[in-house]
Amino acid sequence: LVEYQREWLHGLARAAALAVEEGHFRADLDTEQFAYEFYSIILAFHHSSRLLRDARSEERAQRQFERLIADSLPA
Amino acid sequence: LVEYQREWLHGLARAAALAVEEGHFRADLDTEQFAYEFYSIILAFHHSSRLLRDARSEERAQRQFERLIADSLPA
Repeated sequence: LVEYQREWLHGLARAAALAVEEGHFRADLDTEQFAYEFYSIILAFHHSSRLLRDARSEERAQRQFERLIADSLPA
Repeated sequence: LVEYQREWLHGLARAAALAVEEGHFRADLDTEQFAYEFYSIILAFHHSSRLLRDARSEERAQRQFERLIADSLPA
């Protein structure tokens, strides 16, 4: 399970690096930080929607995700 | 446990609302979104440091936290 999650994080960082290469994300983006934050959004969403059963979880996660993407775009 | 975590989130949102009242945070801050994102940082930090044993978890969480605070300050 732990190895699987590490691979998932590496995959996210790799996807972000491809987006940087293609010019969709800014050149100075820290792709591992991006992956870490992406992961935190997913974790919190599962936690909030399943454990806390907060009806606004999806909206919250979406706003957080949109900010992460906005911060990752080229200037 | 669930009730405890809900109270923790409410406490965070209340703290953010006080910071808005005092002018430390911007007036149009969504304090519940702030609490949700603060919570996601803590969740991810625990997950990353304890489960994945990533040595850079603290630095990652700190950067994420600094951005959340920077986004919450008055313009």
